[in-house]
Amino acid sequence: MLIVQKFGGSSVKDADRIRSVARIIAETFLLGHDVVVVLSAQGDTTDDLLAKAAELNRNPSMRELDMLLTTGEQQSVALMAMCLESMDLPAVSLTGWQAGIRTDAAGGAARIRRVDTERLRREIDKRRIVLVTGFQGVNKYDDYTTLGRGGSDTTAVALAAALHADRCQIYTDVEGVYTADPRKVPAARKLEEITYDEMLELASMGAQVLMNRSVELAKRYGVELEVLSSYVRAPGTKVKEDSKPVEEMKITGIAKDENAARITVARLQDKPGAAFRALNAVARAGVNVDMIIQASGRDDTNDMSFVVAEADADRAMAALEERKAAIGFDHLTADKNIAKVSVVGAGMMSSVGVASLMFEALTDAHINIQMISTSEIKISCVIERSAADRAVAAIHGKFFES
Amino acid sequence: MLIVQKFGGSSVKDADRIRSVARIIAETFLLGHDVVVVLSAQGDTTDDLLAKAAELNRNPSMRELDMLLTTGEQQSVALMAMCLESMDLPAVSLTGWQAGIRTDAAGGAARIRRVDTERLRREIDKRRIVLVTGFQGVNKYDDYTTLGRGGSDTTAVALAAALHADRCQIYTDVEGVYTADPRKVPAARKLEEITYDEMLELASMGAQVLMNRSVELAKRYGVELEVLSSYVRAPGTKVKEDSKPVEEMKITGIAKDENAARITVARLQDKPGAAFRALNAVARAGVNVDMIIQASGRDDTNDMSFVVAEADADRAMAALEERKAAIGFDHLTADKNIAKVSVVGAGMMSSVGVASLMFEALTDAHINIQMISTSEIKISCVIERSAADRAVAAIHGKFFES
Repeated sequence: MLIVQKFGGSSVKDADRIRSVARIIAETFLLGHDVVVVLSAQGDTTDDLLAKAAELNRNPSMRELDMLLTTGEQQSVALMAMCLESMDLPAVSLTGWQAGIRTDAAGGAARIRRVDTERLRREIDKRRIVLVTGFQGVNKYDDYTTLGRGGSDTTAVALAAALHADRCQIYTDVEGVYTADPRKVPAARKLEEITYDEMLELASMGAQVLMNRSVELAKRYGVELEVLSSYVRAPGTKVKEDSKPVEEMKITGIAKDENAARITVARLQDKPGAAFRALNAVARAGVNVDMIIQASGRDDTNDMSFVVAEADADRAMAALEERKAAIGFDHLTADKNIAKVSVVGAGMMSSVGVASLMFEALTDAHINIQMISTSEIKISCVIERSAADRAVAAIHGKFFES
Repeated sequence: MLIVQKFGGSSVKDADRIRSVARIIAETFLLGHDVVVVLSAQGDTTDDLLAKAAELNRNPSMRELDMLLTTGEQQSVALMAMCLESMDLPAVSLTGWQAGIRTDAAGGAARIRRVDTERLRREIDKRRIVLVTGFQGVNKYDDYTTLGRGGSDTTAVALAAALHADRCQIYTDVEGVYTADPRKVPAARKLEEITYDEMLELASMGAQVLMNRSVELAKRYGVELEVLSSYVRAPGTKVKEDSKPVEEMKITGIAKDENAARITVARLQDKPGAAFRALNAVARAGVNVDMIIQASGRDDTNDMSFVVAEADADRAMAALEERKAAIGFDHLTADKNIAKVSVVGAGMMSSVGVASLMFEALTDAHINIQMISTSEIKISCVIERSAADRAVAAIHGKFFES
């Protein structure tokens, strides 16, 4: 089998961790598998480099920042190759350029355009362990680019797709994907399998196991992912097209997102296009909007509320205020004291009663529901932020512990 | 004019030094010149990376070591580019690969095969300051290689040759090349000009201003070098094919080399090939030999002495001892308490009396001459090591201060 393995920055942060990861790689290789390994920069390397840059230039160009940051992964793969050499294993490290990872021109958050696999295949055919820098590639000008947050996961999935790998293993500091955050909900269970769509909903709701871009890419190319721990040797969670449901339950997991704020546009004119103009102003400020509700007012105005990331709230408010006359509303209010709690599950669409079970759990726990939104595989409620952990525990109890 | 400027690791060791070097670059650029800058890794970066490697593998492959070490210069050029950007100057950093520096396959001490200047010329034509990583290139497999000690000087000279630059400035922590080491001989004078051959003789005699490989390359391609200080803004020393002699003096400089040991092969058989076999044994041990003298003995044997680097003395002794029977000698002695003192000057060959003036200086100072060797532009004497500084001062006094 050809297996792609990805290890993050904390997994290679010092010599001990590098040796420990090398043993995982060696074990896989010595079972007879071909192994391609994707590594991130060591622990704090990226932050240290950013601090050096900030000393010289508060606002450096993305091109030069990428030139600087890509050295971090290059050091990781070289050090890992040396460690594997010391174990008498054949290893070769490759930068994104050498591995044929071609991206678009956008610095800082480039997208992979294609992978020229010739060199990779040649090294695999020589029965070498191939170590590839995550997070980076080169654009058509042969300039170094980086893929943005979680970019090493994306690199791993892209290589698995291009090489038609049999498996793509994402090693992290958790043992897999859980029905809820196991640090908060002791009864949370590790899922054996989960669908891409469920994983996407959980990730965007704050379960930071895999970045969405890598899951989207895996879904598009049908790459089966496995999320597992680099500390504990145990099966992780498989992310794939179809999953076995957990027992007879219709839902897969529960997530909360505390990075949220609700903005209310009070007394918005009840005229065609008013809501569009308001939301368009927010979008032009680069702010994503979630969960929009509109309540009819007593006169010819409505109150419209929507949810944005807390960090974006002030920017969204400013954008609306600037176009107040063109949009036509009375005033704005913002509530940064909210959280979103969601249940996710592909089985939900063919079932009824999931929503009512969720509402029942929140009602039993005396938690007020401020907003509700549903999709085919997700139901989200906005509640008071201080009640978020209690809400997750209550919902988890209702679905998984009764 | 197109000017290549090279700055070493101590010149870019922190943000303050980077800013200070950026001002030198900016000044040159704003005078209207095209500027290509070659940088080494920051201060201790290379040592830090070597320490990290040693934790994992005492004997890593050269390929992976080069992969690791080349990140140092990449960080330097990116940081310098950001610093220049902050001064509103157009700058672009390039790795050895991006700059088209193609080397042979030998890791750790590769030689530059050619420079594909297309990208460099394109960036220069855009009126950008081009920052190139010193010390590194890529081989025909697209693997990263390093050029060995002093490799950044070699990079600068190779770029100057390939781009037909008008000047190649090597910035160091000294103000130029002196008639003797100015820390030891207060009356030492900075030379305005020196020939390639004189520079080569001075460098190999321990005046560590420029590595020999870069001077050889400059001579071969007729690149005029200038050695100058990155701390003090003053003209340095030009290294070129012909130089003006210092006043009417026939010599350019005086150097000492304390890294020397004399090995004596006692009672070597006076038969054809005996000396050859002895020296061949030493050569096969990878040891360079200098200044050979043979003294006739009273019987059918000779004593042969030669000078090697002190660090190589034990290896040379062992190689001789191992082939003692085949070579035919009685015993070996080594004297590690010696130094070589040399006067260098292209004018010497057309003149007499330089040697006698040197011997007179040493005799006046009561310093015993143990061995003498002469070349067209150099006279070297072996003396007791403790007298070396006194010898240099005495010779300097005789030639330059009378």
